[in-house]
Amino acid sequence: MNWSEIIRLALQEDLGTGDITTDYLDLEPIPEKAFIVSKAPGVIAGLEIVKEVFLTVDKNLKITMYKRDGDTVKRGDEILRLEGNPASILKGERTALNFLQRLSGIATTTRAMVNKLEGTSAKVLDTRKTTPLLRSMEKYAVRIGGGYNHRFGLYDMILIKDNHIKACGSITEAVNRVKERNIAYKIEVEVSNIKELEEAVRAGVDRILLDNMSIPKIKNCVKRFGSKIELEVSGGVTLDNIKEIAQTGVPYISSGALTHSYQSLDISLQFKE
Amino acid sequence: MNWSEIIRLALQEDLGTGDITTDYLDLEPIPEKAFIVSKAPGVIAGLEIVKEVFLTVDKNLKITMYKRDGDTVKRGDEILRLEGNPASILKGERTALNFLQRLSGIATTTRAMVNKLEGTSAKVLDTRKTTPLLRSMEKYAVRIGGGYNHRFGLYDMILIKDNHIKACGSITEAVNRVKERNIAYKIEVEVSNIKELEEAVRAGVDRILLDNMSIPKIKNCVKRFGSKIELEVSGGVTLDNIKEIAQTGVPYISSGALTHSYQSLDISLQFKE
Amino acid sequence: MNWSEIIRLALQEDLGTGDITTDYLDLEPIPEKAFIVSKAPGVIAGLEIVKEVFLTVDKNLKITMYKRDGDTVKRGDEILRLEGNPASILKGERTALNFLQRLSGIATTTRAMVNKLEGTSAKVLDTRKTTPLLRSMEKYAVRIGGGYNHRFGLYDMILIKDNHIKACGSITEAVNRVKERNIAYKIEVEVSNIKELEEAVRAGVDRILLDNMSIPKIKNCVKRFGSKIELEVSGGVTLDNIKEIAQTGVPYISSGALTHSYQSLDISLQFKE
Amino acid sequence: MNWSEIIRLALQEDLGTGDITTDYLDLEPIPEKAFIVSKAPGVIAGLEIVKEVFLTVDKNLKITMYKRDGDTVKRGDEILRLEGNPASILKGERTALNFLQRLSGIATTTRAMVNKLEGTSAKVLDTRKTTPLLRSMEKYAVRIGGGYNHRFGLYDMILIKDNHIKACGSITEAVNRVKERNIAYKIEVEVSNIKELEEAVRAGVDRILLDNMSIPKIKNCVKRFGSKIELEVSGGVTLDNIKEIAQTGVPYISSGALTHSYQSLDISLQFKE
Amino acid sequence: MNWSEIIRLALQEDLGTGDITTDYLDLEPIPEKAFIVSKAPGVIAGLEIVKEVFLTVDKNLKITMYKRDGDTVKRGDEILRLEGNPASILKGERTALNFLQRLSGIATTTRAMVNKLEGTSAKVLDTRKTTPLLRSMEKYAVRIGGGYNHRFGLYDMILIKDNHIKACGSITEAVNRVKERNIAYKIEVEVSNIKELEEAVRAGVDRILLDNMSIPKIKNCVKRFGSKIELEVSGGVTLDNIKEIAQTGVPYISSGALTHSYQSLDISLQFKE
Amino acid sequence: MNWSEIIRLALQEDLGTGDITTDYLDLEPIPEKAFIVSKAPGVIAGLEIVKEVFLTVDKNLKITMYKRDGDTVKRGDEILRLEGNPASILKGERTALNFLQRLSGIATTTRAMVNKLEGTSAKVLDTRKTTPLLRSMEKYAVRIGGGYNHRFGLYDMILIKDNHIKACGSITEAVNRVKERNIAYKIEVEVSNIKELEEAVRAGVDRILLDNMSIPKIKNCVKRFGSKIELEVSGGVTLDNIKEIAQTGVPYISSGALTHSYQSLDISLQFKE
Repeated sequence: MNWSEIIRLALQEDLGTGDITTDYLDLEPIPEKAFIVSKAPGVIAGLEIVKEVFLTVDKNLKITMYKRDGDTVKRGDEILRLEGNPASILKGERTALNFLQRLSGIATTTRAMVNKLEGTSAKVLDTRKTTPLLRSMEKYAVRIGGGYNHRFGLYDMILIKDNHIKACGSITEAVNRVKERNIAYKIEVEVSNIKELEEAVRAGVDRILLDNMSIPKIKNCVKRFGSKIELEVSGGVTLDNIKEIAQTGVPYISSGALTHSYQSLDISLQFKE
Repeated sequence: MNWSEIIRLALQEDLGTGDITTDYLDLEPIPEKAFIVSKAPGVIAGLEIVKEVFLTVDKNLKITMYKRDGDTVKRGDEILRLEGNPASILKGERTALNFLQRLSGIATTTRAMVNKLEGTSAKVLDTRKTTPLLRSMEKYAVRIGGGYNHRFGLYDMILIKDNHIKACGSITEAVNRVKERNIAYKIEVEVSNIKELEEAVRAGVDRILLDNMSIPKIKNCVKRFGSKIELEVSGGVTLDNIKEIAQTGVPYISSGALTHSYQSLDISLQFKE
Repeated sequence: MNWSEIIRLALQEDLGTGDITTDYLDLEPIPEKAFIVSKAPGVIAGLEIVKEVFLTVDKNLKITMYKRDGDTVKRGDEILRLEGNPASILKGERTALNFLQRLSGIATTTRAMVNKLEGTSAKVLDTRKTTPLLRSMEKYAVRIGGGYNHRFGLYDMILIKDNHIKACGSITEAVNRVKERNIAYKIEVEVSNIKELEEAVRAGVDRILLDNMSIPKIKNCVKRFGSKIELEVSGGVTLDNIKEIAQTGVPYISSGALTHSYQSLDISLQFKE
Repeated sequence: MNWSEIIRLALQEDLGTGDITTDYLDLEPIPEKAFIVSKAPGVIAGLEIVKEVFLTVDKNLKITMYKRDGDTVKRGDEILRLEGNPASILKGERTALNFLQRLSGIATTTRAMVNKLEGTSAKVLDTRKTTPLLRSMEKYAVRIGGGYNHRFGLYDMILIKDNHIKACGSITEAVNRVKERNIAYKIEVEVSNIKELEEAVRAGVDRILLDNMSIPKIKNCVKRFGSKIELEVSGGVTLDNIKEIAQTGVPYISSGALTHSYQSLDISLQFKE
Repeated sequence: MNWSEIIRLALQEDLGTGDITTDYLDLEPIPEKAFIVSKAPGVIAGLEIVKEVFLTVDKNLKITMYKRDGDTVKRGDEILRLEGNPASILKGERTALNFLQRLSGIATTTRAMVNKLEGTSAKVLDTRKTTPLLRSMEKYAVRIGGGYNHRFGLYDMILIKDNHIKACGSITEAVNRVKERNIAYKIEVEVSNIKELEEAVRAGVDRILLDNMSIPKIKNCVKRFGSKIELEVSGGVTLDNIKEIAQTGVPYISSGALTHSYQSLDISLQFKE
Repeated sequence: MNWSEIIRLALQEDLGTGDITTDYLDLEPIPEKAFIVSKAPGVIAGLEIVKEVFLTVDKNLKITMYKRDGDTVKRGDEILRLEGNPASILKGERTALNFLQRLSGIATTTRAMVNKLEGTSAKVLDTRKTTPLLRSMEKYAVRIGGGYNHRFGLYDMILIKDNHIKACGSITEAVNRVKERNIAYKIEVEVSNIKELEEAVRAGVDRILLDNMSIPKIKNCVKRFGSKIELEVSGGVTLDNIKEIAQTGVPYISSGALTHSYQSLDISLQFKE
């Protein structure tokens, strides 16, 4: 599904056979103004989606952006102005905010992690631990927050994990098998100790994922192999420990929490005279 | 979209043109066993979805449930056993967990709130602040956690909010207009003070939503009108304050946080011999 | 499906791989005028659908409405003018009329029933006995005719019928069970005699449906409980008996015949110089 | 859309986010028996659709057919038996009946017309005046009633009508243009008097439609051209006049009323011990 | 699927989660000019599809046609000019060319066959041996090349082939059975020798397909029956033998090779200053 | 779209409102045997698709495979046996063969190219010049023929072409920009001479595509850079020149002709006693 299809289905989910409250009120179609306003500090993501939600409800609404995706807002900042039929604004409100609050929440968390990395050369990456059907939007929010996208799915990069290795017998065997068929994709291998790392380096891959290692172990890995191969740290990454991880010199840090658990940014819609 | 369509699209989102890692490894289709295991305490929700995810990937997988939706788990509990082609298990793993972790997270938070209500007669309700496209699943998880469902969308209950009232001039006018057309649906009105509450009661509706009121004000509302009309509290409800709110005697407490911000429950899939 | 999807599919059903008659005639795209004309008296419903049908075929057609939905027409009245490529008009003709004739037929029948109710306070309601896939349009036509909409489906109101009651053992048991879970929806119970009605009133519901009762029985029900609870009559309602039913004082009368059996209103499209 | 898609969408239309009445009653899944019973005499059509509706709701329902499509029923006849979870039966009931009643209504009317034709060689044909999205099902019901199908849409037969002829200047010109491109399809022309008929015969087509002619005129047409070319009568065909039309010797009589206006056959579902 | 759906799905197939090359280059949206240029002589077909592909990617692209479908091009001819955001042009390029090259390839081959028929009255027809999902486009390309369309599918013409005849026992039996039910469609029968042809003529059908006959046999068939019934030759038709076949006087020659095996016309997109 | 959706839509394209020939013949459902037989030598690809086509038409057909995808067949070889209702076999025949003939055609051409590479270490790759909507199937056929898949679309590998380079100013600039954002994907650059190759090597990419170079130039490129970086040859690759290209030592050779122009393999379905 592309974003337009997601938006259309989200509106259908909320509107069903019609917004009975607004329809039964039979409001005059006299143009009104409404504002989307931030009620907490954060980073905005998803404004084009908000726009498309409202224009799908009513293509005659006039929308003025006061912010762009990636902008920082503080409590009370006006983000976007709507002008037009109040019934249309009321019908799109909840769906628009449900997108905007989630994506801004992800961008805000990502930005906080990115800020912790200042002074290091590390980059923060997302994972596939995303909300079903919204992966593309959530990965967009990560980019807006300053993070980088790891693979989009099982189809566009090879990541050999512990279960794959077990099934093949060894890292070397797994890598060899994959190389026989692969032309187009990068190959990454997950390792959990220095011995596996050595084997993976010998097998010849594009990147190695250090899974759930302690800081001293990561340091050791970086010292011995950091100049020869791309390394990535994953597992238990938090705002509290990401700086320490980055200071080991590892260039990539991936965090599932960016998308599997998030606070929606508090944002509301207000009519104004 | 029904759940089967959501599941099919979620798999398509992750698998795209194919799981290149697993396909290129060309694993022997020798049946293996894998377990879905809880890595944190919580309430499980979404097991039928997990089952359908895996059976959509490979209808020959054998699935044994050790838990049912609503069961409490502790760290290390086995939830479900899979047996069959390891390639199929690996292809469905992430999509299945992405559903299960989110829904169990919602059920766990809901249960925590419900537990706080013990000794009161209050019920906790969800809202429309749900993830786009997953509302039906998330509302299911709320029920599994012991919460109750508020309306599913704009189409199945009338909820007159502040913006509607402004547009009509008064609560009385808004309620009268709606009543002229309504046959099938309950009518609820949002009020923010005792004067509005009085007007709403006079206008004659099915339920009144007390929006963002302080505990003393809620108490006053309940005392004066609680026996005459259904009251609902909304706005800023947290695990910390829900008990105090319930002790005012208000029968319904709705919480957007149940679905707009949640922690995924930590759950993983492990192959075992 | 929303109306646009229904319209698109209806055109696809008729046009398939192309209108071979019109295409093979290779008509000059010289703009012509055509009129949609009523060939019988009635109430018009569905003009926006007609418009969308033709604009879906050819967005350059110019459409002028001479009537609005709900207007009464007599034989020979011009309803709508089309101007543009005659091939486009010919391609949309049948699909447009198939919608317009059916919906106008429903509106016409509904209006006839509503007219019979003059002088009483009764309202006529539709049912779920609608044409598969067209329920939302048909319920719209009922509103246009002056009728009111009962529930849209199984999902937006609770209606406990004889089979439900049998399965639970009693009205009281059925109502109690439903109340345990229900927060958002109205509850209606179907009864077939005064004893059941008494039980339903005691159980406490929002409305009671008197199923297939004789006029004297309805009168008795209204006299005893009409001031305490909303009553609805259903079963065998016709143009001939609806006035008598209304005169019992019952406020709601629902009629399946509005949508399960109808005469299409005779309407045609004519090219004119 | 094929029939399975129509059935799936029809169920979705009725069930939406769930059958709250049945779900909230939380019925025991103890198998029960229910019967679909005719409440009026008629011809049954649509039993396979009924079966698929119920099996889509619950693939474990057991369904026994007592009648086949095309069978005549009288009031009280049992048509089909359902056995299984009562909740599943209740969820499918209305959708199943909405199909069955309409299609049986069409089959019943068609059969009545066909019976009038006894002793003549005329055949009754349907038209494109069908319910949007249900054309294929309705044309099936016509066949079940003993009627014949005219073209399915604009794509599978050429029918040159008055508006086409006007646009081209003459019947001869229209037929010639079509013949230049046509390889695969039959060509029919609509005429309204004997002079046009003569021109159409000369132009060389497969069939000629006599539109809205009086009985004597039809007789004349048949006498002069009936042995040379296929003739079809259309316009204002009713149960009352179809026999007289057939007695003119015209081989084909098409009737829009078969599908544009119909009485649903009265059929109900009853649980029994 | 209509053409717009095919185009949308084709773009989705190529773009997936995004054109990472173009997106990561972050090109300035400064309008550029690009030309679609023929690199080999041929007949162009599919320009409206090309246009829709690019406008689906970016509705602000300006497109100027230098050629029309059916025009002959030589190596180096400019076919179409694009002006606008270079990123949009790059995203649509491959999908647009994939359509245009195939359809122009079909039109080119068809034209070559048609040219061979000069001086005869034979017409070249396509078959159902088309690319799955693209039949309607490919049949359009055949028309553009000067060929004629045989039936579009199994649903719009009756063609009784050898396997049907075997299953019924005889040509006569098969034709009689079909005639009992058929009102709307032409009937064609496949025969492989003069005896079968005689039987088919007696049975009375609209056209007869001479399957895989030698030139002398075709001549004989035409001589004996060509004035009484439409004849069609099929099987092993090539550019080399089509003229000889046509010279037998047979009016219709159908060729599967037009669509089952084709050379894409070499066409490319070039940016120019 | 996944393969099942493609198959379902392909059947719908051919069957439309029904196979009127087979339906009107009203064949006895007495099980018959039919065989899919090769009429020319080649490599088979698509048997699972054939199977799904027939089982979608009729799940009771029994299908026995005599060959597997990748097997070589000669004229007259039986590939697959069908047993069951002859009407079902006739309905699926054309759609099944349309898939099988095309995919086997691709596999046959690929195998021919692969055979030419014997004795070299070169691999033949496909491109994105595939039939719209069938890319995944066609790339599968390439694998079956012994070829390798290049990227599946614009989303899973970065390929910087001449137009991208022009737009950025230089290879170095283009590569640098892409590297700033890229984490997950391989980067390939297209070059047309040794100078550009040198620049691309310095810029640091994963692979370099030598576009339309002469054999001596390719040799020179391989000699100078073949040990440092992966090289790929593209442009004008044919059965005649692929061996010579491979003998330059270049490891990858990609050919658009594998999928943009192909001969369907001649395969037919025959009923047998």
